[in-house]
Amino acid sequence: MRALLCHCRNFKSAITGLSTAPASIEPEPITKDQYEAADAIVALITVEPTDLIQEFAAKVALEIRKFIEQVGHSNVVLFPFGHLSNQLADSGTTKDFFARLEKELSDLKIIRVHFGSDKSLLLDSFGHKGNFRYREFNP
Amino acid sequence: MRALLCHCRNFKSAITGLSTAPASIEPEPITKDQYEAADAIVALITVEPTDLIQEFAAKVALEIRKFIEQVGHSNVVLFPFGHLSNQLADSGTTKDFFARLEKELSDLKIIRVHFGSDKSLLLDSFGHKGNFRYREFNP
Repeated sequence: MRALLCHCRNFKSAITGLSTAPASIEPEPITKDQYEAADAIVALITVEPTDLIQEFAAKVALEIRKFIEQVGHSNVVLFPFGHLSNQLADSGTTKDFFARLEKELSDLKIIRVHFGSDKSLLLDSFGHKGNFRYREFNP
Repeated sequence: MRALLCHCRNFKSAITGLSTAPASIEPEPITKDQYEAADAIVALITVEPTDLIQEFAAKVALEIRKFIEQVGHSNVVLFPFGHLSNQLADSGTTKDFFARLEKELSDLKIIRVHFGSDKSLLLDSFGHKGNFRYREFNP
């Protein structure tokens, strides 16, 4: 699992269509096509094929909680982002991971972005030390 | 080497201070503290310790050129970004890599962002397919 966590003053994303790659992708139903947050931790996450789903969901949740405590903002955006690795888990595993991660953070204000779509993305990060944090978990 | 290439309608970054981590970091002199571009390919790049500097600079330059041809915009932002890997090259190697990459692309309009500083970052990506591209090169 690879995650890029970012402390953003603004975040926006809008779905423009469904993903068609990889060929096996199974997009979620679209229930919302625009997302927006201010003063948030945005977590761009790539789930990999051999990930230990429950263990890594707990680990990344902990990293998000540490970040929240340090910056004093508690909005969280969970963004399935298949661009931090060349090894991508199948769609079912990715959805399972995000469901578990969302459950781990269920006491917080979470925006869970759609999986399986083309999207615009606006990331507007603060400039302080530690504004971006990379985390990688391997079996 | 790991690179995240992004087709952005807007890009902004402003230096807020010098990096202090890792302890061995050797920041470049600051000659410019704000950067801005529209309709650009933004290349966030992490140089890793065992990278084949010249070979990988040529490879990522080729990926940037392909992207440019496909989207029809030729502004390029080269951004040293130590948040795509846990294995970071030393400062000298990173600077050498970016110097070579800049040379490979010297016919284009390049913004080369400072290495060794804390910065705000605004990435405002288009929503089309292939707006983000991840590339990884290993020895």
